[in-house]
Amino acid sequence: MALERHPVRIAAAGDADELASLLHDFNAEFDTPSPGVDVLASRLRRLLAVDGAVGGRTVAIVAGDPAVGVALVTFRPNVWFEGEVALLDELYVVPGLRSRGLGGAMIARLLELAEERGAGLIEINVDEADIDAQRFYERHGFTGFEPVTGDRAFYYQREL
Amino acid sequence: MALERHPVRIAAAGDADELASLLHDFNAEFDTPSPGVDVLASRLRRLLAVDGAVGGRTVAIVAGDPAVGVALVTFRPNVWFEGEVALLDELYVVPGLRSRGLGGAMIARLLELAEERGAGLIEINVDEADIDAQRFYERHGFTGFEPVTGDRAFYYQREL
Repeated sequence: MALERHPVRIAAAGDADELASLLHDFNAEFDTPSPGVDVLASRLRRLLAVDGAVGGRTVAIVAGDPAVGVALVTFRPNVWFEGEVALLDELYVVPGLRSRGLGGAMIARLLELAEERGAGLIEINVDEADIDAQRFYERHGFTGFEPVTGDRAFYYQREL
Repeated sequence: MALERHPVRIAAAGDADELASLLHDFNAEFDTPSPGVDVLASRLRRLLAVDGAVGGRTVAIVAGDPAVGVALVTFRPNVWFEGEVALLDELYVVPGLRSRGLGGAMIARLLELAEERGAGLIEINVDEADIDAQRFYERHGFTGFEPVTGDRAFYYQREL
């Protein structure tokens, strides 16, 4: 698969089935629970349609046709920036096509999109053990340390 | 100040000036840059008005009257949950009134609000050095470790 022939693009609601399948495989690979392809597809169809592609709250960036990689991004307002904050919720490339620049191409498109929308910040949560992902994001200009204090930044959660 | 006399409440756009002043003091206390009270007030007025209080993307929970504490929360869609994900962007109580349960009262209101809206998850980013905050959130049911793997969860960012 040549990147030239299959450039990354912004997904539409019609891509929901393919993307749901990728996201489900993502969670299966990392032993994380998934609500299943059908539920994910129905949610994605709604989110990508309601939010309306490039300008919406949820944007999916897809690599390949058929899709072999996906970056799922949500935008929200933030008082510290004039523009929005973008959070990269998921980034996945199928196992057989990794280390070929697809992840980097999706990040490049995300940076472009974030600048087009005037976003002030892009955020990502990464597990401690996932050293490859940390290196990948550091190569793309992200830091896991607070700019002022130099402290490691932790992510906390509570399910409801 | 008695909590009974000044219960926590959801802020309206008219609270923007008071909240801006608290958030500015917050950043000053922790040596973090702030765009200043006027800019913060103008952004808060817009966010709290446009988003429309309880149901909006940005919700501020206020403690005291005049305000002596604020919790700033943003809601966004997420494919892994039927409902939204809530992110607690800021939690601040003025120095003289800490350790009196105001923070806990705002967190309790946040949990209530998140359940009212059918949210599936609440997230917070905490610095490594801020042990008191980590203990506070752990007491309120949050975890800084991935449920499946037990790994510490890191937060990465890139300013634009």
